Amino acid sequence: MQQLLAVDWGTSSLRGARLAADGSVQEERAFDRGVLKVAAGEFAAVFKKHFGDWMAAPETLCLISGMAGSRQGWIEAPYCKCPAGLQDLTRQLTWVPYAGNGRVAIVPGLSCEIAGIPEVMRGEEVQVFGGMQLLGMQDGLLVLPGTHSKWVRVRGGRIQFFSTVMTGEFYALLREHSILARTLPMGDDELDTAAFDQGVALALRGTSLLRTAFSVRTLALFERMPANLLSSYLSGLVIGEELRSQSFDGEWQVVLIGAGQLAQRYERALARRGVTARRVGSEATWRGLWAVAQSVDRA
Amino acid sequence: MQQLLAVDWGTSSLRGARLAADGSVQEERAFDRGVLKVAAGEFAAVFKKHFGDWMAAPETLCLISGMAGSRQGWIEAPYCKCPAGLQDLTRQLTWVPYAGNGRVAIVPGLSCEIAGIPEVMRGEEVQVFGGMQLLGMQDGLLVLPGTHSKWVRVRGGRIQFFSTVMTGEFYALLREHSILARTLPMGDDELDTAAFDQGVALALRGTSLLRTAFSVRTLALFERMPANLLSSYLSGLVIGEELRSQSFDGEWQVVLIGAGQLAQRYERALARRGVTARRVGSEATWRGLWAVAQSVDRA
Repeated sequence: MQQLLAVDWGTSSLRGARLAADGSVQEERAFDRGVLKVAAGEFAAVFKKHFGDWMAAPETLCLISGMAGSRQGWIEAPYCKCPAGLQDLTRQLTWVPYAGNGRVAIVPGLSCEIAGIPEVMRGEEVQVFGGMQLLGMQDGLLVLPGTHSKWVRVRGGRIQFFSTVMTGEFYALLREHSILARTLPMGDDELDTAAFDQGVALALRGTSLLRTAFSVRTLALFERMPANLLSSYLSGLVIGEELRSQSFDGEWQVVLIGAGQLAQRYERALARRGVTARRVGSEATWRGLWAVAQSVDRA
Repeated sequence: MQQLLAVDWGTSSLRGARLAADGSVQEERAFDRGVLKVAAGEFAAVFKKHFGDWMAAPETLCLISGMAGSRQGWIEAPYCKCPAGLQDLTRQLTWVPYAGNGRVAIVPGLSCEIAGIPEVMRGEEVQVFGGMQLLGMQDGLLVLPGTHSKWVRVRGGRIQFFSTVMTGEFYALLREHSILARTLPMGDDELDTAAFDQGVALALRGTSLLRTAFSVRTLALFERMPANLLSSYLSGLVIGEELRSQSFDGEWQVVLIGAGQLAQRYERALARRGVTARRVGSEATWRGLWAVAQSVDRA
């Protein structure tokens, strides 16, 4: 097989990996050049600067997932409609006219529609397929925590539908811009597990974050919780709200794709919801792009 | 009876009314001098400047409700605990040492506790008692829409408990600081009733604003809704979420205390939830302070 350069070009960061024929990662690079930090018309130059040497190897294929395929990205890659499997992504690759060695294509994002409301994602679909392959699964419910978390339903190896939960963004809005920010000390939000659990528990027995959020203020006002624990409590409220509002349809195991402290928080909150998680880290992205590349070769 | 000066000194505005013995409003004034705009130590001077002439009349009593009684206000007036009736407010007035004619007192706010979480309000309790009196009611569920909406349960003329819903603040956060702000045009948020109703409907059949909010972005992305209607749609989503998450316990009539376009939006959304509203406007504040004054005289 030809050499694969796998690139995850998201809103805030640009990451790439050189993969061997068996999918193993040879080398990784990461740059602070997310789509929001690249001017229109500069994508090819930024790509060449950071990955030109890797592209110089004979017959190199580069696959890019993420927001690089959005209207504000390198080239707009139209969404692929759900239900969709790996083959659908391969069939709808958008080839980039790249003035250099090798071939470059952008993997499409996915769209679906639930009760008249459209849903979209770019990049997560590759992580989902990669994660499923790493775990040897064809069916499951997956969660990808983040600024905009995605919940994805896979059946028979195809993504059936998914939904977006603005968990991370709500946390940041409340943390930084709301009246609650006045009682939350600035600085690192180190996790206090007891305060986090208390937030999760309140959210799970509540009916809406609109109603539970004010407790951050009143617990501070009555000195029921020290100020340095309030951000952990708020984090528990917001993540707990995400889990309260998710229908598990009697399926109490999910696949959690993510890494670091955020994934730990989700594992912790999921356990309180009675849900166990199998976890896959960032290797899911490289595995997913490698899997797409396999069917490019067969195409 | 002595003359009553009723003052509502809130976070963002200062309003006062001179009331006749029968409670009728003789004259009203409003100033852009909310508690946030008055420096510590300046409250007496601001009060005297704006109401000194009214206080000059013989035997004038002034009652002040709202955030003027908070830690950041004129004098901290400790919260009165629920359940609480009008007499409890009177008994716990905090008298202000006022160097001038007449007497000045601050009406306490209320606190309650639900499942270990404290709740507080300052000013709304006076509106609740005034509104109930204007409607001749002793029992009811009341909603006071705003930045932090309050839902108040009254039984036998006493406030039993209440809760805070951060509806207006969530709207402003999403409107101004979130990713949704990018698709929402700047300027006046004139109401489009159809878009508002569509937002309410989605919220009512949803499980959380965390999940429904992203639809503002995707409806714009797929050009399913013109950009100038999106703020009405978002308003419907947020108010609809407040109503979805409220337990009505089979009681399908509420008292709505509020005025103007916001109250109209709530009436509209309540109707979609199957709830009718009796409405009282800002006169509830003056009536409530007048009712407290009656028991001061009897005390």
